[in-house]
This record gives sequence, structure tokens and C-alpha cells, in this order.
Amino acid sequence: MARVVLGMLGLGTVGSGVVKLLAQHKHLQLKKIAVRDLAKERATTTTCPVTTDVNEIIDDPEIEVLVEVMGGEEPALTYIKRALEKRKHVVTANKEVLAKHGPSLFALAREKGVTIFFEASVAGGIPLISTIQRGLGANQFKAVTGILNGTTNFILSNMEERGLSYETALAEAQALGFAEADPSADVDGHDVAYKLSILAALSFQRFVKPTDIYRQGIREITPEDLALAKEFGYRIKLVGTARSTNSTNDPNTKPNAEEKSLAVRVHPTLVPLSHPLAAVSGSNNCILVTGDAVGEIIMVGPGAGSLPTASAVVGDIINLESALKLPDFASYFQPSITSQWSNTASSDDWVSPYFLRLSVADTPGVIGTIGTIFGNHKISIQSIIQRGVKDGRATIVILTHDVREGDMNAALTDLKECPFLDSVASAIRIYRAG
Amino acid sequence: MARVVLGMLGLGTVGSGVVKLLAQHKHLQLKKIAVRDLAKERATTTTCPVTTDVNEIIDDPEIEVLVEVMGGEEPALTYIKRALEKRKHVVTANKEVLAKHGPSLFALAREKGVTIFFEASVAGGIPLISTIQRGLGANQFKAVTGILNGTTNFILSNMEERGLSYETALAEAQALGFAEADPSADVDGHDVAYKLSILAALSFQRFVKPTDIYRQGIREITPEDLALAKEFGYRIKLVGTARSTNSTNDPNTKPNAEEKSLAVRVHPTLVPLSHPLAAVSGSNNCILVTGDAVGEIIMVGPGAGSLPTASAVVGDIINLESALKLPDFASYFQPSITSQWSNTASSDDWVSPYFLRLSVADTPGVIGTIGTIFGNHKISIQSIIQRGVKDGRATIVILTHDVREGDMNAALTDLKECPFLDSVASAIRIYRAG
Repeated sequence: MARVVLGMLGLGTVGSGVVKLLAQHKHLQLKKIAVRDLAKERATTTTCPVTTDVNEIIDDPEIEVLVEVMGGEEPALTYIKRALEKRKHVVTANKEVLAKHGPSLFALAREKGVTIFFEASVAGGIPLISTIQRGLGANQFKAVTGILNGTTNFILSNMEERGLSYETALAEAQALGFAEADPSADVDGHDVAYKLSILAALSFQRFVKPTDIYRQGIREITPEDLALAKEFGYRIKLVGTARSTNSTNDPNTKPNAEEKSLAVRVHPTLVPLSHPLAAVSGSNNCILVTGDAVGEIIMVGPGAGSLPTASAVVGDIINLESALKLPDFASYFQPSITSQWSNTASSDDWVSPYFLRLSVADTPGVIGTIGTIFGNHKISIQSIIQRGVKDGRATIVILTHDVREGDMNAALTDLKECPFLDSVASAIRIYRAG
Repeated sequence: MARVVLGMLGLGTVGSGVVKLLAQHKHLQLKKIAVRDLAKERATTTTCPVTTDVNEIIDDPEIEVLVEVMGGEEPALTYIKRALEKRKHVVTANKEVLAKHGPSLFALAREKGVTIFFEASVAGGIPLISTIQRGLGANQFKAVTGILNGTTNFILSNMEERGLSYETALAEAQALGFAEADPSADVDGHDVAYKLSILAALSFQRFVKPTDIYRQGIREITPEDLALAKEFGYRIKLVGTARSTNSTNDPNTKPNAEEKSLAVRVHPTLVPLSHPLAAVSGSNNCILVTGDAVGEIIMVGPGAGSLPTASAVVGDIINLESALKLPDFASYFQPSITSQWSNTASSDDWVSPYFLRLSVADTPGVIGTIGTIFGNHKISIQSIIQRGVKDGRATIVILTHDVREGDMNAALTDLKECPFLDSVASAIRIYRAG
């Protein structure tokens, strides 16, 4: 096999794994690693020269491939652009850079005749990108849905299994190194939104602006929600989905829409206990890919971690390396992604059943009033149960049939004007197969 | 994209799906289809010319790719060889031909500078081949294990859920078209053995002769076994595995073995109800791929069916087509499979726990004698329970700890000499993670 010379940016969790794995692949020569701080302690030792000067890599004509595993938007974006300008291929694990700047980066790569490989940017070790791009290439995709963030899944699993509060479960995850000191990227759903943008680009040929993705995190989920959900046969997961609104005949499809658009969303979701998504515990990821020919394919595996993510990075390098000797191979590997951003459907138009937990005064007529308000907004109730009466207050749990999200929001606005209502403690969507 | 001209052999379930899917891909031109019987009714209509003369395809220099979806060993083998000789690429769903003749076919393809694509040969619509070959390319594989036959899984699910006998469940599957009139290929495990041979070639670079694969089917499984297994927290599945005996530190590994060899086996297996394999019902397939870097990846999806299998065939054609314009691309796509057959480990050396169901006389000392015999053969019993005493006969259910298969066979031979034993009604292995 051909020998290929690599330069790497970053030597953290993923970079250390890449160094370890590359030791098994002698024809892949890691020439230099650039880091921000030479003094920082590393999880690995390497005989490869380490520098703080990125230019030693980007300006080195012998280095054909830039491996970017530093993460974050800047300076990674600048470095990737400069490498592409110099006609270096890029292998990156950087979901944030791709989600925010994918269209221009892929356009630049095309212009320069090089490629960007990014298997590690979504779902860690699960080879989801190559599955969508190659294995399922004969399909028109309907939806890609899944649990794409191990940190929040770990927190929710712990909250459910041990009755922990969100704050306690987060603190434990932080102590174990599974959550960052500033957990916002994970718990507020940004990380999943970035990944959905990339998955949309692969499945539907257009990136979605992360700011156009409906996003709700897990901070508001309580042990009560998890316990009640379980009682009704559900488990609460942070589920992300990118779904074509023009490809299926479910209520989330608008076959006559003038322009193709996507519903792209991440929020807590009640999934039936018997569904594969409910079985995903701890830091694993699980993705359901629905195509017109194949139906549904499910993939489960480690969504993060040093060696699993390095498996994806080095897998990209190997695929790149064995193809590098082919003249003009870039056009083959370049994914067909347009340089325009995708439109997204209004979140008001999303349809799914709902789980509601209301705190109310324990007075007659409450359920009747709620039923009337919901009826006014075309919301059909599947079950309504009063629980835990205490000190004149009660909890009401409602499961609805399919509801348009705009209608639910209008109903909740009306409900909040009722004198008997203390609060809408929770309003969580229920999983709906595409 | 480049235009590519195809000829197809076969127009049955898979071929009909391919015709339907190709209609969405206008740059892939299906020029001619060869069938055995022009008069046979087809699941699809096509404007493509249909012939009974295979030579019209194989001898047509305009046809670059032979799509072989006729199945069976001959005449498919002869046609594939002739196409390769004529420097045509081959896309095939034919597990039997590949398993029996893989080494010589891949050698011939290499010699002629063409490639064989075979995503559809294993696990139907699940893109397992591309996942092992491309997505997980950075890994040394430890094992590939799974439910690879939808027909037997459908039969076992029905037997368990509805208490049906094997014969009744088979007859139902045949009436529904899920099983063949001669069911041997499915129920005796031949189909799984072929797939394991191919998976071994991809994961460990060498095909395994189907006759070297330890194989036991589902004919002997009874509703009693399924019910008892469930009571103990297990479900019985037909599980196939190809495992390197040199790569892990489990008891099925021989780190000092002089030569690398594989344990390749298919037999009924008790899997814990909480394990992903237990959740696979009906005609779905489920595969666990274990690599040194990534850990365990699980894939679930339709293992057969017209459009899912066509998804794999057409996916191969698309990947081939977009690469055809690259000079000398064949070497890139040619899997690195040697032309030698792999050695296989003796089935006597396989280690796993066991589930046993014995029919015995209800007399004192039986359990003591069984315990002594097992002790003599280094078999440690996890639980032994007497059930269903009737007319002086009783059923004894035994779950053991890890046992070497040779030791178990020796113990069963001793047991059969005991006067109290009516029969060893069942001896089924319990799943053991690699």
C-alpha cells in the first residue's frame, strides 16, 4: 500500500486514540502534531514531534492529509480552510465546524480537488456516515433519528435508574469526566443539533443551519417525569431527528409543499419501552435510518471515547490512503452536498402525541375544563389521570393522540389562564415513527 | 455522472426489486435480463428485453457489469466466471457461490482487473459488508456474531409466542412464502454457514469452507425448550459466529496457537432476554461486530425481501458506477482476501455455558449421579432443577457454567449409560460474549 504522510491538530482524548491506532498502521506516517500547550499532560506518549506552530504542518508540502481533532469552531475553521487552500485532504472529527460552515468548506474542497472525510464527527465509533453515504446509496432517505449524545443519555439513565435529580446526575457525570465543566453543548442539545445538520447534509444533500434547528435540552426533566413515563410504558430520551417533509405520508409530510424542506429537531422524547431507542443506556448512541427501499436500519455502538472515535478517524485515513493513488479520486469521495443551506419546516407544524404533567388545584371541574380547552384546539386526549393529591393540590397526567405543535402551544396558553392551574410542570413529546 | 450499462441474470424476488429501484436511477442502464423460463409469472413488469440466452449478456462488450441475482451454485458459478474472464465487474447476491468458490473467484477478478461487489449476499438490506470493509477499516476484528437467517428467526418467534411445534410453525412459514418447500438451506443452517464464510473472509481475510463450519439447525427445538429458556431468562435464537481464536483473552482464544485459526459456528443458542439479539423478532437480522478499537457495533434491519435486498444490490452498482471512471480503481475496491482457505478451530475446543433438558426416572440419587459425572468432566453446574414429575418420570433442567464442548460431549456419553436416563432431550449452548 502507498505511504501517506499526515499532520495532526490536537492531542486530546481523540488525538491520543489516533496516535495509538496509527501505531498498528505503519504505512500511515504521522509526521507532526500541533497542540496549544506543550506542557499539558497527555493520555499518550508519542515519538512523533509535537509543536505549537500549526504552520509547520499546514506549510509542509510533504504532508498530504490534515487530521483535525482539536474541536471547537476557531481556530479549527481557519486551519481547515488553510489546509484545503494548500490542497491537503482533511480528516476531521469537528461537528461544530462542519455544521456551521459545511457548505463553504465542501465548496472549497471541490474547488481545490481535495476531500473532507468526517466519519468521526457524528456518533463516534459507529460508521454511520459511510453507511448513509455508501452502504445505503440506493435509497431516498425519509428520516434519520436517534440518540446522538452519550452525555445526556448517561445522565437520563442515571436519573431514571437511581431517582437522581438532574443536578446530581450532572455533577456525577462531570466528576466521572463524561460531562464538561460547562455542560451546555451537551445538555442544551447544541451537540446533537450540529450532528443533525451533518446528517441532513448526507441524507438530503443540504446542511441545515444549527440556528434553524428546533432545540430543547434536558435541564427541565425531573425524576418525576421519568418515573411517570415508565409507569405509562415509556422512557425519556434526548432524541434528534432530521426528516424530509416531502417523502412520506405521515402527518409530518407536506407532499404539496412548494419547496422541499426538512423537519430537524432535538428534544426530550418519550419512547416506548419496547422500542430499540429505549434500550440504549449509558453513553451509547443509537440511530435509525429510514430509506425508501431498505426500510429501517438500526445502528448501536459507542458514540464517543478515545479509541472508538479514533476508529472512525483512522478508518477515514485508511479509506483515503488506499484511494490517494487513484488520479482524480476526489470527485468520487466528495459527497454530493449543495452549497446552499436547507429550508426547515416550522416547528409549529410538527405532529406527535404529547405527555403532559400539570400541577392543579384539586377542585371539581378541572378535568372538564381541560378537556374543553383541548377540544377547542383539536387535541384528542388518549388518557387523563389525576395523581398524588396533597394539600389541596393534585397532579394531572395527560397523554394525547397526535397533536400539531402549534395547536398544543395554543392550548397550553389558554390553560395557563385557568385559575386552577399552578403550572404546566412538563410537556414532552412522545416518539412517533416516521 | 457516468452512464453504466448492466446485464442481469435472474428476475425473481431480488431481481424484481432491482428493476424497480433502477427506475429511479436513470444513469444506470439495464440493457438485458436473462431468465430460465420466459413464461414464468413475475412480480414486476419491465421494458428491458428479457432473454433465455445468457450469452447475449456475457458476450455483449457494451455491458460492463453483470448483476447476478439468480441464486444457487450452478449455473451461476459458471456465468460469474465467464463474466470475470470477459473483464466484466460482477455484483452478486449469491452467498452460496461466494462461500464455496470465493478464493478462486476473487483471484480471477484480481487477475482480470475487475471487482466483485456482494453487499446483498449477507444480511439483505443491512449494509454490513461496507461497514466491515470501509467504515470499520481501522479495526482488527475479534468476532462477527448474529442472527443471519430471517426464516428460522420467524419460525422460532412463532414457536415461542404461540407455543407452536416446529412442524406447524414451518408449515405456516411455507404458506406465507417465508420458507421454501425444501427448507433445509434455512432450517439446517446452511444459509447461515455460507454467510459466515463470507463474513470471515471480510473480517479475517480468508474464506472458510462451508463444510468446515460447525452447523446445527433448529429442527430439534421444541416449544418446551423455548418455554423453559424463557423461564430462566433466555430466548432461543439461531446464532452464527465467526471469531478469531487468536485475538481476545476469552476462553475461546488460543494466544499461543501456532497458526491463526477461526471458530466458525452456527447453532441454536440461548441469549439473555436483555441482550439485543433477543429483541430481534420475525424476519429481521441482527449482527454484532466486535473490533479492537471500536468495541461492539450492532446493526439491525431487514435480512431479506425484494426491495431491501435490491437496496444492497443497487447500492453496490452505484458505488461501482461512480468509481468506474477512475483508472485502475479495481485495486481499491478489491477486498484483501487471500486465495487460501482458513483453518478452523476444533469444535471440541469451543467454550460456553450449556442448557440441558434431561428426561429421567424419578428415583433417588439421580441428581447426585449427574453431579458426579459432570464433576468428573470438569463441568461446573450453575443450577439444576427437577420439573414436571409424571408417571414416575421427571424432567431435569441444568444450566452450567463455561464448559469445553469436548468435555460436555464426554459427559453426555457417560450420562447416556445411566439406567435412570430416558433421553437427553436438549443440549443447547448459552450465548457467551466474546
